[in-house]
Amino acid sequence: MSNTFGSLFKVTTFGESHSPGVGCVIDGCPAGITIDPEEIQNFVNFRRANTSQYSTSRIENDECEILSGFENNVTLGSPICIFVRNKNIKKNDYDELSQIYRPNHADFTYEKKYGVSATSGGGRASARETVARVLAGSVAKKCFEHFSKETKILTFVQQIHDIHWNHKDEISYSQKEIYDSEFRCPDKVTNLKFQEKISVAKNNGDSLGGSIRCLIQNPPLGLGDPVFHKLEALLSQAMMSIPSVKYFESGTGIQSTYLLGSENNDPFYVDENGSVKTQTNHSGGIQGGISNGMPITFTVGFKPVSTIFKKQNTVNKVTKTTTEFQPTSGRHDVCVLPRAVPIVEAMAWIALLNCYLSQKTAFFHHDL
Amino acid sequence: MSNTFGSLFKVTTFGESHSPGVGCVIDGCPAGITIDPEEIQNFVNFRRANTSQYSTSRIENDECEILSGFENNVTLGSPICIFVRNKNIKKNDYDELSQIYRPNHADFTYEKKYGVSATSGGGRASARETVARVLAGSVAKKCFEHFSKETKILTFVQQIHDIHWNHKDEISYSQKEIYDSEFRCPDKVTNLKFQEKISVAKNNGDSLGGSIRCLIQNPPLGLGDPVFHKLEALLSQAMMSIPSVKYFESGTGIQSTYLLGSENNDPFYVDENGSVKTQTNHSGGIQGGISNGMPITFTVGFKPVSTIFKKQNTVNKVTKTTTEFQPTSGRHDVCVLPRAVPIVEAMAWIALLNCYLSQKTAFFHHDL
Amino acid sequence: MSNTFGSLFKVTTFGESHSPGVGCVIDGCPAGITIDPEEIQNFVNFRRANTSQYSTSRIENDECEILSGFENNVTLGSPICIFVRNKNIKKNDYDELSQIYRPNHADFTYEKKYGVSATSGGGRASARETVARVLAGSVAKKCFEHFSKETKILTFVQQIHDIHWNHKDEISYSQKEIYDSEFRCPDKVTNLKFQEKISVAKNNGDSLGGSIRCLIQNPPLGLGDPVFHKLEALLSQAMMSIPSVKYFESGTGIQSTYLLGSENNDPFYVDENGSVKTQTNHSGGIQGGISNGMPITFTVGFKPVSTIFKKQNTVNKVTKTTTEFQPTSGRHDVCVLPRAVPIVEAMAWIALLNCYLSQKTAFFHHDL
Amino acid sequence: MSNTFGSLFKVTTFGESHSPGVGCVIDGCPAGITIDPEEIQNFVNFRRANTSQYSTSRIENDECEILSGFENNVTLGSPICIFVRNKNIKKNDYDELSQIYRPNHADFTYEKKYGVSATSGGGRASARETVARVLAGSVAKKCFEHFSKETKILTFVQQIHDIHWNHKDEISYSQKEIYDSEFRCPDKVTNLKFQEKISVAKNNGDSLGGSIRCLIQNPPLGLGDPVFHKLEALLSQAMMSIPSVKYFESGTGIQSTYLLGSENNDPFYVDENGSVKTQTNHSGGIQGGISNGMPITFTVGFKPVSTIFKKQNTVNKVTKTTTEFQPTSGRHDVCVLPRAVPIVEAMAWIALLNCYLSQKTAFFHHDL
Repeated sequence: MSNTFGSLFKVTTFGESHSPGVGCVIDGCPAGITIDPEEIQNFVNFRRANTSQYSTSRIENDECEILSGFENNVTLGSPICIFVRNKNIKKNDYDELSQIYRPNHADFTYEKKYGVSATSGGGRASARETVARVLAGSVAKKCFEHFSKETKILTFVQQIHDIHWNHKDEISYSQKEIYDSEFRCPDKVTNLKFQEKISVAKNNGDSLGGSIRCLIQNPPLGLGDPVFHKLEALLSQAMMSIPSVKYFESGTGIQSTYLLGSENNDPFYVDENGSVKTQTNHSGGIQGGISNGMPITFTVGFKPVSTIFKKQNTVNKVTKTTTEFQPTSGRHDVCVLPRAVPIVEAMAWIALLNCYLSQKTAFFHHDL
Repeated sequence: MSNTFGSLFKVTTFGESHSPGVGCVIDGCPAGITIDPEEIQNFVNFRRANTSQYSTSRIENDECEILSGFENNVTLGSPICIFVRNKNIKKNDYDELSQIYRPNHADFTYEKKYGVSATSGGGRASARETVARVLAGSVAKKCFEHFSKETKILTFVQQIHDIHWNHKDEISYSQKEIYDSEFRCPDKVTNLKFQEKISVAKNNGDSLGGSIRCLIQNPPLGLGDPVFHKLEALLSQAMMSIPSVKYFESGTGIQSTYLLGSENNDPFYVDENGSVKTQTNHSGGIQGGISNGMPITFTVGFKPVSTIFKKQNTVNKVTKTTTEFQPTSGRHDVCVLPRAVPIVEAMAWIALLNCYLSQKTAFFHHDL
Repeated sequence: MSNTFGSLFKVTTFGESHSPGVGCVIDGCPAGITIDPEEIQNFVNFRRANTSQYSTSRIENDECEILSGFENNVTLGSPICIFVRNKNIKKNDYDELSQIYRPNHADFTYEKKYGVSATSGGGRASARETVARVLAGSVAKKCFEHFSKETKILTFVQQIHDIHWNHKDEISYSQKEIYDSEFRCPDKVTNLKFQEKISVAKNNGDSLGGSIRCLIQNPPLGLGDPVFHKLEALLSQAMMSIPSVKYFESGTGIQSTYLLGSENNDPFYVDENGSVKTQTNHSGGIQGGISNGMPITFTVGFKPVSTIFKKQNTVNKVTKTTTEFQPTSGRHDVCVLPRAVPIVEAMAWIALLNCYLSQKTAFFHHDL
Repeated sequence: MSNTFGSLFKVTTFGESHSPGVGCVIDGCPAGITIDPEEIQNFVNFRRANTSQYSTSRIENDECEILSGFENNVTLGSPICIFVRNKNIKKNDYDELSQIYRPNHADFTYEKKYGVSATSGGGRASARETVARVLAGSVAKKCFEHFSKETKILTFVQQIHDIHWNHKDEISYSQKEIYDSEFRCPDKVTNLKFQEKISVAKNNGDSLGGSIRCLIQNPPLGLGDPVFHKLEALLSQAMMSIPSVKYFESGTGIQSTYLLGSENNDPFYVDENGSVKTQTNHSGGIQGGISNGMPITFTVGFKPVSTIFKKQNTVNKVTKTTTEFQPTSGRHDVCVLPRAVPIVEAMAWIALLNCYLSQKTAFFHHDL
């Protein structure tokens, strides 16, 4: 199951950093959804950096090719395969790496798990794999919007290293504004601070981590299955599967462990339209693993990028001895956070759509 | 899939708080493993509180009955069903609840999802369901130990509300000592502080959250599948599926977002036995989603218990109006952390065993 | 996956012939379906022989206990566990079998697969396992009828050994009449012929096979997924998984291989209600793997029972030599066909309901 | 799950007859297997007819492109995507079909299931989909041979319409000879009779069905899971999922229903090497759903091709009236049997490999 996510809208990704390309196959996409290929392309383009300052110099002009599942831009109910060729493969970039395990990379663990590993690039562990997630996420988004038009996802960088954005007025921004901003944070001042931080790290050959916040507005009620597929558990698996992610918190998360029950509980009330709402939203829109209609909120934390241009100890595979290592070239990001925003958004849509489809089979009292 | 966890050692739990009982069916348990039923019973007993101070007054003397899958205490390779009857069902305890949605409980979301819900007790959302996880976890533990004798799980309460244990010398304690300690924290001083904290909260009719730390020593190399079933992603789903859990962090977790790459990277070295190790373990034993042989570490955070004996706003289901509510009776914990320790341990063994079995099919070069 | 059938209405069976009992867990049953426990009990009772002539002398008074998933006879959407205790276990019946592999039984293959096997009874390979299928089938039937009231399954013994019933007027009988008939064939004359045949075989210590016909009237359109989960493929897996089944044919089946395309094709027409129908039904109600609204028809063939009271060669496990063997006691059917009718019906309902639920996620254009 | 087969070596196919192409993604292929791309190409070429007499005039020069999962012809353990472009798409071939439901085709059922269907070609129901199965089957074959070198599959056309080959000496032929023969039957005389039969049908604008026999020699012991994934059940699902297949029989199959238990049972004996064998093989190498080491045998029956060049009744979609229809052009086979042989072989390898990998997790007593 390692390369498939979802039990109804099932996304399988394929492709290594230096294989002919990367792509996804989606099995279980409902029929009859209109999707303009340009919308898929646009979503994929969000994976590109808005500025070269923090990002790899690899020019990834990712062109999507839809190989199956559509006719006249309408889903047929059959598997959707979308493919992006790897264009800018420089196998020799990585020659120096054939002797050593790059610290914090997957070279060592892949070799131990599979007895074999891709000799150049990160193979399957490369962030190239996330292109395929964004392809699938763009389809999931269109499907979900088809069924629940008012649901919106707002996701942005809230922290890089020790710079935080106090996101009090987050909902006054659009996701488009966020994607257009330099570091995928809507606040201009914070963007400037991020820029400084990244600039220093880059000059030092070092790298940075941080966190992304996600807010799902106007979600349907009833998403998430109790027990093992709680909405939180599914979102958590989705996010923790993104490369470099090291923590996930739902709703008030860590802070809620410091609250009393009387502070953390979200009192119910009936609003002016007769709907049941909660006065606060520490639960992050999820109670008993199921969406309660309030905004779904969560935070995803990323460790700093593993590739740094500093001397580190590592092990020589051949001589089996400890050695010093410093990469001399290669294309790497100082900080992946801004480019990870569309990946978080994509995984959120995929998880939501799976829950939505699951809910279609849980309770209904009409004939086919 | 909501009630099944795992793709090879597949655990399905069943039972509501007020149904005849709760249990699990395990499909995919390897044949030929000897398990003494007493060991299962002992593990289940850990779910009981060591002291009545923080816990429900419901006397749950959970007696396990093995219904299938064993002969002479040896697994047959067929599905294992283990069942525990619910003994102490007082349906009337909950009568006052039939009119209102209990704040932060799943009453509201279940009703919206299923159009029907158990009229008393928490139904499927009750913590009774976790009995079944512990049943399955005890089997997973025995299987895993059969294959990898030196692997040990150490898990304990590291935080209740604002009281933290600085767990520097954690590995000097045994899991048995932890289970015997009052609040499942090995440190005596911290236990006393926990006791005070809980005592105050109890007197105030309030409740507390906190966090549990888990450390898996001497794990096999190569566990975890890349991409969507990264070991971190699977552990995260497992833990976030436990009732009341609101965050999960792997390795250094949140702290790693504040480190530079040069601080966070774990340099490799060759140890005195010729094994590849890392000098630090910020990665928490997982790189590229796969275990690297170092201790696997993670933290699981719980919100405070939802049931409190204080006045709160909520909604009357019948009149559809906002109302005040304060439970007058019922059996509830002030703080679930100590009783959640065996659940965290159980889910960890189940997740590990699934990865172990998956690894048996990933790479092997011998005939059947 | 070996003990689970279905991807949405997921049935897992557990229990061996000599374990405390057998049962099923159903995960994914829609909420809000009313089921009288008596209906489940009645369906299970159909597994008992109407006459002792052809059947085991083991008195199986199978009492169903519902362990979870219901409140006030209404499904909660949570897993349904139903259990039947094994009452009449005589372990010593089987002592003589501990030294040899019973011909055509699973003793040999289980031992080779698992390295261990239940020492008495057929273990997991025993027909006791089919009790659990009938439990689950009875729930599936009630759910399916809830959604599609006019759908009926008619299934009966059409052949025992060389005695065939020419089932021209099958639809003039009810399933109740079939279950009440001695050999689960509605035709009285054929029942008498079956009786003679079985009587002779019994006197000779021999056993008989045959075939069961199934006809699903007024099925919904659109059931079955193309490609690997074609309705025929799913029904085929369901039926071939029943012990002793050796062939499956859909629609005209084998005969269709002897027809020309012009003879076998089912011409479409518009009926008096404006519905599209086919003039013939060689397709057995399935085209491209999907139900077309015509009756779904298939045949399931059973080999003769493996246990016979005649001398046969087999192998002694201990001495590893060929030896003669004749069972001296034990409880076995001369012919399983009549008792297999409810199992075929049960598996058909389970397969149909899975397809129905799957169809709920394939195409729909309304909001949640 | 409709487009995925297998639970460990998971094959997902994608592509419609008139989409850019067809392909498969294989998730779960073990790492470290060497496969020459030419072997994949050769297997795919077997799908082409050896003679134009019985087959479509569409020139399908199917060129395989491996998109992922390999490096230097060795599997990496990551998903393998293989793609074949559709080259010879003539959308206008099918214009006349836009108004009517082709008799016995999936046009009607797809439209009812999905509310939309590919406007030309068979879409997903086209036999083009089977290209993807052969791609995956060629990989499965190489893997299986890697683990169990002596296992061979022999599969051939044993029947076209009323012409049968009495396959007494089948094992004296190689699969290569079969693929080289005109109608994929090793017997020259039978090939000539097939030719006559097909020639007559072609001249009449009619079509033919028949059956394929498959024999798996020297299989490993212990393949197949009891209960729902019995080896027979899995093979049956695999074969019944092939377009036009209407029956499946295992071992002696239908004939066994006419045998007494004393005739049908396969007595065990110890052979000269000390191995346990059976004297006869009515069981077709499978007992209790698990392989017993004897040859696995089964038969797969195909209905005649649906497209015929004769006048038939059908329904006009637009006017909703019954109408006459006769296709005037289009590319179709008179008889699919010869071209279906590699598809049967491919599905058999895929099913076997899944069972083999499953067996790796069922019973083993060594450390990782």
